[in-house]
Amino acid sequence: MADSKPLFSLDGNPVAAEALLRDVFGLVVDEVIRKGTSASEKVCEWKEPKELKQLLDLELRSQGESQEKILERCQAVIRYSVKTCHPHFFNQLFSGLDPHALAGRIVTESLNTSQYTYEIAPVFVLMEEEVLKKLRELVGWSSGDGVFCPGGSISNIYAVNLARYQRYPDCKRRGLRALPPLALFTSKECHYSIKKGAAFLGLGTDSVRVVKADERGKMIPEDLERQISLAEAEGAVPFLVSATSGTTVLGAFDPLEAIADVCQRHGLWMHVDAAWGGSVLLSQTHRHLLDGIQRADSVAWNPHKLLTTGLQCSALLLQDTSNLLKRCHGSQASYLFQQDKFYDVTLDTGDKVVQCGRRVDCLKLWLMWKAQGGQGLERRVDQDFALARYLVEEIKKREGFVLVMEVAPILKERMVKEGSMMIGYQPHGTRGNFFRVVVANPALTRADMDFLLNELERLGQDL
Amino acid sequence: MADSKPLFSLDGNPVAAEALLRDVFGLVVDEVIRKGTSASEKVCEWKEPKELKQLLDLELRSQGESQEKILERCQAVIRYSVKTCHPHFFNQLFSGLDPHALAGRIVTESLNTSQYTYEIAPVFVLMEEEVLKKLRELVGWSSGDGVFCPGGSISNIYAVNLARYQRYPDCKRRGLRALPPLALFTSKECHYSIKKGAAFLGLGTDSVRVVKADERGKMIPEDLERQISLAEAEGAVPFLVSATSGTTVLGAFDPLEAIADVCQRHGLWMHVDAAWGGSVLLSQTHRHLLDGIQRADSVAWNPHKLLTTGLQCSALLLQDTSNLLKRCHGSQASYLFQQDKFYDVTLDTGDKVVQCGRRVDCLKLWLMWKAQGGQGLERRVDQDFALARYLVEEIKKREGFVLVMEVAPILKERMVKEGSMMIGYQPHGTRGNFFRVVVANPALTRADMDFLLNELERLGQDL
Repeated sequence: MADSKPLFSLDGNPVAAEALLRDVFGLVVDEVIRKGTSASEKVCEWKEPKELKQLLDLELRSQGESQEKILERCQAVIRYSVKTCHPHFFNQLFSGLDPHALAGRIVTESLNTSQYTYEIAPVFVLMEEEVLKKLRELVGWSSGDGVFCPGGSISNIYAVNLARYQRYPDCKRRGLRALPPLALFTSKECHYSIKKGAAFLGLGTDSVRVVKADERGKMIPEDLERQISLAEAEGAVPFLVSATSGTTVLGAFDPLEAIADVCQRHGLWMHVDAAWGGSVLLSQTHRHLLDGIQRADSVAWNPHKLLTTGLQCSALLLQDTSNLLKRCHGSQASYLFQQDKFYDVTLDTGDKVVQCGRRVDCLKLWLMWKAQGGQGLERRVDQDFALARYLVEEIKKREGFVLVMEVAPILKERMVKEGSMMIGYQPHGTRGNFFRVVVANPALTRADMDFLLNELERLGQDL
Repeated sequence: MADSKPLFSLDGNPVAAEALLRDVFGLVVDEVIRKGTSASEKVCEWKEPKELKQLLDLELRSQGESQEKILERCQAVIRYSVKTCHPHFFNQLFSGLDPHALAGRIVTESLNTSQYTYEIAPVFVLMEEEVLKKLRELVGWSSGDGVFCPGGSISNIYAVNLARYQRYPDCKRRGLRALPPLALFTSKECHYSIKKGAAFLGLGTDSVRVVKADERGKMIPEDLERQISLAEAEGAVPFLVSATSGTTVLGAFDPLEAIADVCQRHGLWMHVDAAWGGSVLLSQTHRHLLDGIQRADSVAWNPHKLLTTGLQCSALLLQDTSNLLKRCHGSQASYLFQQDKFYDVTLDTGDKVVQCGRRVDCLKLWLMWKAQGGQGLERRVDQDFALARYLVEEIKKREGFVLVMEVAPILKERMVKEGSMMIGYQPHGTRGNFFRVVVANPALTRADMDFLLNELERLGQDL
């Protein structure tokens, strides 16, 4: 035990370890990168949970398995997984596969470090700073702060916590009981993380005042004014408005200038949830949709959605230059953030967040950006808009594409079981169920849009 | 624009995309897996931030770059990154490289999906369930619930939120103002996430009552009793005790049986932060250190630490079978968790968490476990204990190894700048600075322990 023979991995056989990794990588290239992105292959191979469990033989046992068996297991995992990189996967706000971003992810995984100190992540601490600076520039800020978070929901929740702390720093120590009742405002089209966050932060979902949206899904600023007055009349203290750039279901962009006016008038923190729409800032043609975002206090922006960096890449950006993030979230743990270090400890980012270990999420975006350039990324965003417009025009030409309501779940079941396509559906207000086609994959063409429409027709032929 | 020619990735050149990925993978094998784990190479190549910034040329420009240039960039990123897989990296509670786990990570990254619905993550939803079941069995539970979180801090914070919700479900809607003042208890040796969490959840850091620890760092149950009485006398309602199995600095295991008795007596939620120590449950020889853990309500356990799965792999385990996670964190978003789906929607895990998108963190652990078997993993844990014991015995034989105090930062600077080794140091109570040697890498041998001691002597020769 513990003599000079290491247990290293494959019983001390690094050659076998390398061979396994090469085989698995080969599998990834063949099955995911080639077949997974091919329109002639299935998006998924549907299995009922019970059957899939048996096929995968998931049980963890006491005995280890051979390399051969392990490779087979990887094969099965890939085979029965949904190919989110497939051109007919329209199901989520992410899709597609960027090889540079994937290269960045593979390097990230191999280096396996945590983003919290310059000491153990020198490259990534500097890189994160640079990437965040670039994203801030696109928002319109020449200075500020920020951090990558484990998803847009956490970014939004951080923003609410920062706004609360800025107004009532005492809350950190004494808690909400020391504060007056608070109110925050967002539209009925906002992402559900705002309400989840209010509950989690101890504010309670009742503290979220829901502002009306117009028929396109945009927040109505006049109703925001009204809700603020109402909250005040009820004795609550308004402190934050969360606007949305690219709502989850309708893709609506709230009127940020008008909302900023309201926030300014009432001295409220303005947060913009641009998890989906933030990437539109890269497009000279379409960035007007976010006019006014530069007046926000905080912005959540997920490049893993429209920019295809891979999960997760979620930036929280701040206009603040007063070290608010560290003051609000920090705890100065002496075992990690020693102040007698031999380098500039302000580089240590760990106290910007409530997490401790934090994954490296900047490399995939940085590498993809280096490869594509801002121009290449802009082209992608413009293409997404062009394809979405094409789809709308084509839908108008076809009959029977307005009310899918009750048939949506049936069409969904059919497409998944055939594996031909994946699109999400949901009800919306009085509209009942409808399909939400997400155009984000840079590999999409007009042919894929045509396929989508033909396929929906084919699947619904007998209904 | 948007005609039938896709922008796919490398200007529609999948062959080039594959070639790039192959080159990057080759680089990972040569520079990280081979050189990075070799004791004869440097742990890090230290550069001052200013110099490193120039070397990396981090700026993001409008113009894209050639494949050749991108490969060079990956080379530089790897070169200047710390090799956490190196046998002389003792700096954090994670280190080493398991090839199966890395294979699992590469497959995970290529499939790029989110863990929230069975629909888009059929394999991983079932796999997560199975892995959590196995971890729960090791805790001693035949049923329960759980979820993988983005780090142990979030696991701990979730536990506090669940305990609060269980006692006061109304808090979700009405917030903390509707509740009496609450108190939670943890030892002075606990991880800083407990205080960060209390602030974040709106409880305030004052709500955390600090229990004394003995000289080995273990919570003193009698003082816990005393603190509970004190809090009650001050009008606060105790609701949770967070014990620690494997404290961050001293690696102490709190006496869980005695703490469970106290919790039972007072009707308090018992959480165990076993982020570091949980993996000891795999060892028949050493698992007695966690005796009593089966009496906990919740356990946080990070296999990315002692089990080398790679960041992040953080399980939150619950004894609860009443769907507490979903009731506490859920919001039933209609666009994601449609109830009219064609499969059993209780499989959808998204409403277990406050996040929306959630990374797949189970495959790396599952694949490694399949390859090593429980036995192989047990052998690793036992080896870590044996090596730690060996190190202690060797230290006793050497003079001058007791008080490093003021010299710790100097030794640290020297080792990092030479790149020979990385160990974390910190002050502790009256002890001043000392080095915390973390033994977690399965590739370690006695020779590495000897190197560590010799190197510390060499670096401090002139002091």
